Amino acid sequence: MQNIVCFVSDFGLEDTWVGVCHAVIHRACPLARVVDLGHQIPPFDIKKGAAVAAAGVYQLPEAIHLVVVDPGVGGGRKDLCITARSGTRLVGPDNGVLMLAAERLGGVEEVYAVESSRIDFRKPLRTFHARDVLAPAAAALACGVQPSSLGDPIDPEMLVPAPFSPTVSDGEFVVAPVLERDRFGSLRLRIAAEEIDERGLQSERLEVSFGHLALEVPFAGTFADVEEGEPVALIDSSGWLTLAIRMGSAAERYGIEPGVSARVRAI
Amino acid sequence: MQNIVCFVSDFGLEDTWVGVCHAVIHRACPLARVVDLGHQIPPFDIKKGAAVAAAGVYQLPEAIHLVVVDPGVGGGRKDLCITARSGTRLVGPDNGVLMLAAERLGGVEEVYAVESSRIDFRKPLRTFHARDVLAPAAAALACGVQPSSLGDPIDPEMLVPAPFSPTVSDGEFVVAPVLERDRFGSLRLRIAAEEIDERGLQSERLEVSFGHLALEVPFAGTFADVEEGEPVALIDSSGWLTLAIRMGSAAERYGIEPGVSARVRAI
Amino acid sequence: MQNIVCFVSDFGLEDTWVGVCHAVIHRACPLARVVDLGHQIPPFDIKKGAAVAAAGVYQLPEAIHLVVVDPGVGGGRKDLCITARSGTRLVGPDNGVLMLAAERLGGVEEVYAVESSRIDFRKPLRTFHARDVLAPAAAALACGVQPSSLGDPIDPEMLVPAPFSPTVSDGEFVVAPVLERDRFGSLRLRIAAEEIDERGLQSERLEVSFGHLALEVPFAGTFADVEEGEPVALIDSSGWLTLAIRMGSAAERYGIEPGVSARVRAI
Repeated sequence: MQNIVCFVSDFGLEDTWVGVCHAVIHRACPLARVVDLGHQIPPFDIKKGAAVAAAGVYQLPEAIHLVVVDPGVGGGRKDLCITARSGTRLVGPDNGVLMLAAERLGGVEEVYAVESSRIDFRKPLRTFHARDVLAPAAAALACGVQPSSLGDPIDPEMLVPAPFSPTVSDGEFVVAPVLERDRFGSLRLRIAAEEIDERGLQSERLEVSFGHLALEVPFAGTFADVEEGEPVALIDSSGWLTLAIRMGSAAERYGIEPGVSARVRAI
Repeated sequence: MQNIVCFVSDFGLEDTWVGVCHAVIHRACPLARVVDLGHQIPPFDIKKGAAVAAAGVYQLPEAIHLVVVDPGVGGGRKDLCITARSGTRLVGPDNGVLMLAAERLGGVEEVYAVESSRIDFRKPLRTFHARDVLAPAAAALACGVQPSSLGDPIDPEMLVPAPFSPTVSDGEFVVAPVLERDRFGSLRLRIAAEEIDERGLQSERLEVSFGHLALEVPFAGTFADVEEGEPVALIDSSGWLTLAIRMGSAAERYGIEPGVSARVRAI
Repeated sequence: MQNIVCFVSDFGLEDTWVGVCHAVIHRACPLARVVDLGHQIPPFDIKKGAAVAAAGVYQLPEAIHLVVVDPGVGGGRKDLCITARSGTRLVGPDNGVLMLAAERLGGVEEVYAVESSRIDFRKPLRTFHARDVLAPAAAALACGVQPSSLGDPIDPEMLVPAPFSPTVSDGEFVVAPVLERDRFGSLRLRIAAEEIDERGLQSERLEVSFGHLALEVPFAGTFADVEEGEPVALIDSSGWLTLAIRMGSAAERYGIEPGVSARVRAI
C-alpha cells in the first residue's frame, strides 16, 4: 500500500505551512494518508533533514517520502522525484536532503524532475514550492501517477550529494560521522545495521572514540541491558549504530554534536 | 470541498486539548478532515492567533476555520460562526481573533452565534468551549449544517475588532503594523498582496523603516533572488508584504517585534 | 465507536517515532483514527505521562488509549492491555504509566499481556516496542480483536502502581499531590471532580496550602469568574481540582511543581 505520504520539513509547527501541505494532499488525493515524521528540523538544516528522512525511509520503505528543507526555494534548484532501488519514491529539492535516504534504500534507480506545468497547478509561488509543486507531486504519486509523468528524466550522477562525509575503514577502525542526536541525546553514526558484519564490528564490546575521548561500551540489544547512567552502543530504531546512555544523554555527557567523526572498533 | 476543518489554537501540543477536539470532530462528522494550522500560539495571544488565522484563510479559503485563542472562555463572550464575503466559514470566540481573517476574505457577510443548546451537546464545560461548543460547530458545518441552525444572527457591527492598528497612507509612505514574525524570523506587515498596486508600492526596490532604522531592499520574488545574509522584501506564502533575510532572521537582526509600525515606500 | 486510538508518548515531535507509529496503525487497521494527545512528555517522565493519559481517558473514555513512556523498553517489563471497569482499553508498558488512567475509569477490570508472537509481527526491535508491539496491539483492538487474543492474562494485583502518592483525608483537610502543571501554568491536584462532595470540598471558597503558603480562593466555574491576575480553584477539562490564575501561571507565581502535596479544605 503506497498511499501513505511521510512528510519531513523545517517548517516547524508554529506556522500554517505544514497544515497547508496536508490540505493540498488531501484535496489532490483523498485516499492519501499524510504522516508527519518531523517538522522541527532547525531552519535550513539540510544535514538534520537528511538524517531524519533516512531514519524515516528505513522504517517505512513502502511509503512516499516528502522532504522539504529548502533554503534555495525558487532560485533555480530542481524539484525531484527519486525512485530508489527499493522502489521507494522520494520527493524534495535537489540539495542533498534526499540522498542519505536514497543511499539507505540501495541507491538511486531513476530520477525525474517535478515540473509544476505537468501537474496542472497554478503558477507556483516562488517561496513555497512545498505547497505548489512538491506536495502536489507526492499526492499524485499516492494516487498512482507515474514519476515519468511529473517531468523530464535527470541523470542521477548530476544530483547534489548527501551532506555528510563518507564512512571509511582505517585499519581496524571504522571512521564515521555523527549524523544526528535524537531527542534522548543518543548519537547516531553513519554505520548502518547491515554494515556491522562487513565492517568487522560484530562484537560484544566496542571502542568508540572522538578525538582524545575513548569509550569502551557494550554493544547491546537495548538500553535496559546496561545500568542507569551507563553508556551503551546499539542499533536503534533508525537502523544506525548509536551511542546512548541509559536514562541519560550521550550528546550532553560527552559534548558531541552532529558532524564530528567517531572512530569505532571491535574489542 | 468544504470538509476540511483548519484548526488554530493556543493549546500547545503538551496537553490533551488539541487531540480531544480532533476526536470530537471525527465523531460528529466522520467525513471531516482536521488539519492543524498551528497550536503554538503563545497562551492568550490574540494578535498571534489572528495573524496565523489570516495566513490560513488566505491559503485555504475553501475550508472551515476553527480558531481558539480564548482567554475569556466561559465568561459571557459570544461563540461565533462568521461567514465571510468569500463564503468561507470561521468559528471562534468574539474577541477579535477571527477578524483579520474575515477582512482578508473581503469582510464579514453574516454572523451567527453558536449556541450549544442548538447543537444538542451536553452542557458545555465553562473552561472548554473549544471541545463542547466550537469544535462541534465546526464539525456540524463540515457535515453540511447551515450557520443559521447554530444560533441567532448577530449584527457584524457589534463584533470585537481585529487586534491591530489599521494600515494608513502618509504621503508617499504606507504605515503598517508588523503582524507577526514567522519561524524563519521574517516580518509580515499588514500590507496585503492585493494592495501593493493601489498603495503605490509596485517597484523593484522599497524603503522599509522602523523609527531611525531605514532599510533599502529589493522587492523580489523569492529569497534566492538576493545573496545569503541580504535583506529582501517579498510577498510570502501568507500573502502579506514581508521583510526577510536570506538564510537569516530579520526579526533578530533588526530587533523588531510584532506590533511595531513600519513605514514603507517605493524607491 | 471504538476506532479512535488516542496516543500519548515521550517521543517528542523532532524524530520519526510518532509518525512511524501512525503509519503502523493506519496499515494494520485502516479504519482507525489516530489522535495525538501529547508527545511532549519529558523523556522518561512516567509521572507526566500518567497524568496526561488520565486527562485523556477522562475526556475520551470511548477510545483506545496507547501510552508510551518506557525507559525500561526491551528489558523484561511487560507490555499490557488493560481493560478498565468502564470498558476502556489502555495499551502500554507495565511501569505505572497506565494506572492513574485506569483508576480514573473505575479501576482495572482485566489485564492481558501483549505478546508480539500473537499478533504475528516481525520480531520486535528491543528498543522500539511502541512500533512493533504496542501500536500493533492498539490497531488490532481498533479493528475488533479481543484483548484475550493478544496474550496471557495477568493478575491486576501484580501491576506496577501509579507513580503518585495517594490522596488522604486529615481531619477537615484533604491532602493530595499535584499531578501536573498544564501549558497555562495551572496546577492539577489528585482530587477528582466526582470526589468533591464526598471529600467535603463543595464550597464557594477553598483554602489551598503548600507548606507555609496558604491561599484562600474562590471555587468557581471558569477563569473569567475572577479578575485578571487573581487565583481561582475550578474543575478543569481534565476533571481534576485545579489551582489557576486568570491569564497567568499559578505554577510560576507560587513556585509549585508536580509532586508537591497540597492541603485543601472548604472555608
